[in-house]
Amino acid sequence: MKGEPVIVMLVEDNADHAELVIRTLEDHRIANKIEHFRDGQVALDYLFRRNEFADPEISPRPHMILLDLRLPRVDGLEVLRIIKEEDVLKNIPVIVLTTSEAERDVAQAYGNHVNSYLVKPVGFEEFSKLMHDLGFYWLGWNTHPRI
Amino acid sequence: MKGEPVIVMLVEDNADHAELVIRTLEDHRIANKIEHFRDGQVALDYLFRRNEFADPEISPRPHMILLDLRLPRVDGLEVLRIIKEEDVLKNIPVIVLTTSEAERDVAQAYGNHVNSYLVKPVGFEEFSKLMHDLGFYWLGWNTHPRI
Repeated sequence: MKGEPVIVMLVEDNADHAELVIRTLEDHRIANKIEHFRDGQVALDYLFRRNEFADPEISPRPHMILLDLRLPRVDGLEVLRIIKEEDVLKNIPVIVLTTSEAERDVAQAYGNHVNSYLVKPVGFEEFSKLMHDLGFYWLGWNTHPRI
Repeated sequence: MKGEPVIVMLVEDNADHAELVIRTLEDHRIANKIEHFRDGQVALDYLFRRNEFADPEISPRPHMILLDLRLPRVDGLEVLRIIKEEDVLKNIPVIVLTTSEAERDVAQAYGNHVNSYLVKPVGFEEFSKLMHDLGFYWLGWNTHPRI
């Protein structure tokens, strides 16, 4: 990923949670650009380069996707399933970031080949630490194919 | 995972690399127990509780699998494929830890639903830092279903 801008896709409908993710990612200089989508359908339109995202210049592939589970229009688990069944997208690490600790959600996410599943911490300090650690792990240590 | 011993499975045939992984995991107190296997076949026997591993008491599920790619008898990519096709095993995070940066290996690992792909750093300090970060990420932050 040397030299190219690092893009993180965030799919999150809760405005407070999204602001917290964006702020803490920026604090730690994790990404050069954060593409934030509020529902699953628009996130898929971007990834599949449909409609206003048809030009690859305006829809570069993200290096990591942070995905909430409860989303309007297309649910997070369905977004995950569609990404992981598509050859040109399945190589992008998808990290579920949710308030749900329900065993059923965790199991379904792994069943749909999530790369990692994170429960949002409640306090700001811990949330910020998590964003730091996940950014450095996935964008620093982890290797993924050219996308 | 609170209260239960944390088990890491390491599948690695190179004795020097295995010693380095075990030493650095122990330095950072990442795991309570490291199950080390030198070939893919014995690792699968453990996971599928075959032969000498038939008793679940002696083959508890690992919380994370560190998998080399070049392995005797059954190759790492094949071990990965078999784990991720098996319902009772697919929820275990599998992290490939290899010297190979070959695009083909990376792509095949993601094609077989690896959770993460790490290239072994050359220097001791960086290797130790990687073991620290991966341990805290996967065994601290990451949530996976009861196994």
